[in-house]
Amino acid sequence: MSKKNTIYDQLCQHARETALIGSIEELLGWDEQTGLPPAAAKYRADQMAYLAGLVHRRQTAPQLGECLETLAEGPLAADPHSETGATIRGLRRSYDRKTKLPQMLVEELTRTAVLGQQSWVAARKQNDFASFQPLLETMVALKRQEVEAVGYEDHPYDALLDEYEPGEKTANVTRILARLRDALVPLIQSIADSQRVAPIEILRRSFPIEAQESFGRKMAAQIGFDFERGRLDVTHHPFCTGLGPHDHRITTRYNENFFNGGFFSILHESGHGIYEQGLPTAQYGLPTGSAISLGIHESQSRLWENLVGRSRAFWDGAYAEAQSAFPAALGSASLDDFYFAINDVRPSLIRVEADEATYNLHILIRFELEQELVSGDLPVGDLPGAWNDKYEAYLGIRPSKDADGVLQDIHWSAGLIGYFPTYSLGNLYASQFFEAAAAELGDGNNGSLDEQFRRGQFQPLRDWLCEKIHTQGQRYSAAELVEQVTGSSLSHDALLRRLRGKLGPLYGVS
Amino acid sequence: MSKKNTIYDQLCQHARETALIGSIEELLGWDEQTGLPPAAAKYRADQMAYLAGLVHRRQTAPQLGECLETLAEGPLAADPHSETGATIRGLRRSYDRKTKLPQMLVEELTRTAVLGQQSWVAARKQNDFASFQPLLETMVALKRQEVEAVGYEDHPYDALLDEYEPGEKTANVTRILARLRDALVPLIQSIADSQRVAPIEILRRSFPIEAQESFGRKMAAQIGFDFERGRLDVTHHPFCTGLGPHDHRITTRYNENFFNGGFFSILHESGHGIYEQGLPTAQYGLPTGSAISLGIHESQSRLWENLVGRSRAFWDGAYAEAQSAFPAALGSASLDDFYFAINDVRPSLIRVEADEATYNLHILIRFELEQELVSGDLPVGDLPGAWNDKYEAYLGIRPSKDADGVLQDIHWSAGLIGYFPTYSLGNLYASQFFEAAAAELGDGNNGSLDEQFRRGQFQPLRDWLCEKIHTQGQRYSAAELVEQVTGSSLSHDALLRRLRGKLGPLYGVS
Repeated sequence: MSKKNTIYDQLCQHARETALIGSIEELLGWDEQTGLPPAAAKYRADQMAYLAGLVHRRQTAPQLGECLETLAEGPLAADPHSETGATIRGLRRSYDRKTKLPQMLVEELTRTAVLGQQSWVAARKQNDFASFQPLLETMVALKRQEVEAVGYEDHPYDALLDEYEPGEKTANVTRILARLRDALVPLIQSIADSQRVAPIEILRRSFPIEAQESFGRKMAAQIGFDFERGRLDVTHHPFCTGLGPHDHRITTRYNENFFNGGFFSILHESGHGIYEQGLPTAQYGLPTGSAISLGIHESQSRLWENLVGRSRAFWDGAYAEAQSAFPAALGSASLDDFYFAINDVRPSLIRVEADEATYNLHILIRFELEQELVSGDLPVGDLPGAWNDKYEAYLGIRPSKDADGVLQDIHWSAGLIGYFPTYSLGNLYASQFFEAAAAELGDGNNGSLDEQFRRGQFQPLRDWLCEKIHTQGQRYSAAELVEQVTGSSLSHDALLRRLRGKLGPLYGVS
Repeated sequence: MSKKNTIYDQLCQHARETALIGSIEELLGWDEQTGLPPAAAKYRADQMAYLAGLVHRRQTAPQLGECLETLAEGPLAADPHSETGATIRGLRRSYDRKTKLPQMLVEELTRTAVLGQQSWVAARKQNDFASFQPLLETMVALKRQEVEAVGYEDHPYDALLDEYEPGEKTANVTRILARLRDALVPLIQSIADSQRVAPIEILRRSFPIEAQESFGRKMAAQIGFDFERGRLDVTHHPFCTGLGPHDHRITTRYNENFFNGGFFSILHESGHGIYEQGLPTAQYGLPTGSAISLGIHESQSRLWENLVGRSRAFWDGAYAEAQSAFPAALGSASLDDFYFAINDVRPSLIRVEADEATYNLHILIRFELEQELVSGDLPVGDLPGAWNDKYEAYLGIRPSKDADGVLQDIHWSAGLIGYFPTYSLGNLYASQFFEAAAAELGDGNNGSLDEQFRRGQFQPLRDWLCEKIHTQGQRYSAAELVEQVTGSSLSHDALLRRLRGKLGPLYGVS
């Protein structure tokens, strides 16, 4: 036992040091996005490649494999949900996946991702899918090689999905998203047919950037993002990154004539940041101190952005402050109108601009197309047509050009196949968690969650999320966690209940 | 030859990779100063220590020593000023110095520097030298051990000076600074006795920070700091740091009610940055792509700050623009008054606030005291009294408290002994280089340097500095370079000529 403990301690020490190097790589990436001098990009890539190589060599070191082999048979691994058990399981999972990929394939994937992103940028700008097609074909072929190297039981797509949502299965996601689609398509149609139209012009008035920044910062702090342990900056694409146990940085982008982009990105990234800030800092760098999956991560960002930040109760509490922050834009706008405007639903072509309801159809389209690409049923050359057909079928609109269609997202060019469904999983988890929180937190002396939000009180919810989800690290899989926290397995019900409950009254539909 | 070439290539590759790791460490340091979340400081120290350890292990690797040994005897090292010769010599110098220090001593120095700086901060705040004395005694004792480990020929202080100003000797610096002192003390005295007083109140008016930032940025670009390859940020203490061959970042600090602090720091740090940006980028990480010495580095910052930025010709060209940037402060101030104010000379207690003339006496005092500390002639307990006596003798003023005296600088607490004289060497080099540049550049169709400055034209000077100094990297020692560029060895003459030529007319003294 004592020898195994020593090996276990070495294992943890090794993982922590690897995480430390990884956290430095994150700083290089953050700095690249926030303010790298233009001419410094090439050397920055060299710096990042050096650290990435260091991390990869450590993560695939044969001694690490031997160490994990020894421990996996021993008593420390017996309970998979114990601290030691979860640590050994998590590190083994990462080691197994990484060592299954031949070095040549890893290098080809990296190279193709760099070229692919360059090609995608140009193709999108020129609305020219044909110029991007060869690289996407190479990428899909490489991902199919990855699938074979990693292995799978049921669906080849499982091998890719597992990278982002460990343990999740294609069949399960297909089942849940199909049910969601069957209910959403008619709901969205009835909203489109409704006579009521959200007064979205309100959100396109003048919102001075300084005021957006200070209002956003204040709301981020109020929902619980800790600025002693984080920062807020401006980048072209909003993101959240962790540079250490006490350094979580979020970014947003402001548009002087649009409220949503800057503000809801801040709430969204704050949600990611609050999750990271709630992980057990003493376990930093170990599986028990790390996020479970992209889906769970996204559930936290969506929860704060949509379930809190687009709720009536939130704005009952915050609207007066918003009006004084933006007197020219909101001074004469009623809360009813503002609330309706930020919850506008309408079919659109661009995923990142989509509302809460249609968003999941954007994801479903990508999820279905990805599976066909990976199985080989859909040749890359047929992708634009298939894309447009699905938009017509699910959303009733057809892109007039590929730049607004199949070329809109960076993901595939970078080799991120299997990633999209985690966005919808995040929405589903978020609704299910939120229902449970509302039930558990609404009973005390503190009033319902809505009453708390009206008072600007978010700590009970944050503490609940922290205890139930954040502090668990990777002790449980996402599926286990949702079952444990909410008492049932993941389904489409909570999300649908919520969308109906919110959009029905707004649009006068049911 | 071919085998030696292979070894040489490996040597260069090794040095480049070490520099790459060092450049990442610089980013960690820059980020720490510019915006690290407060709670992240401890982990940041861990990240920096990890990389520092990596760099140190690489710099002292026995294989590196063997490789250098082999090459030092071969033809590639024959000409010490050739690219290969300078590379081998420079890397060997660094290797020898680092391997001469026992690991224990290095660790003790690091530990004492951390504790020393903490103790110094508290002692300075409480004006309590006695509380700092024990740590300074430990530090001095360790530096004396360092002297013994490194070795020296003439003066023990040589072993420390050589770290910052390779090849320079205590005796030479003593000789030059003594001559400077003998001429400066009476000049400063006659200025103090002059009836003319600079209207420094002008510089204490309202200078809005945004205007300072944009004016400073514009002037930095105009003298040649390349913002495609650099940034300007705000920190508590201004500095310049290099994060790669095309990433040089400068910082400043603004005071809304004082012009000099923000503006001249920008010019000063731009001078450091222009030097770094002028080093041969293809040799980045090698001695031929690195700065020669702190003294030469400082010569470039002082040259742009003082010899250009405090010249009448510079403001003949720039003052109208300054007036429109700061209409409230400068709108009614004449150029004569402004020029006199930024060239105010008066004995003062604080080095970093000292003018061009008295500054060198502040350095001389430290240089003399350091030598006595290192030789053991001056016990640390007698330091405050000795400090005050020298201020009285050289500057005619006596600190009323140690916080404004011996406790004002961080250097000794951090183990930086032998560093101060490089500031004065920088002033001396700058004047001597500038005289040579003025002679060589004033002859063409472009008019004198002053005429160029009046037209806002700084590229001829920058190109000259770049060709003569920056692109040389470490091919020559500082002493060799000054001889080569100016035709004579370093002396006090040029600096004194310049100060007399400028201050004489301003104060009506000779």
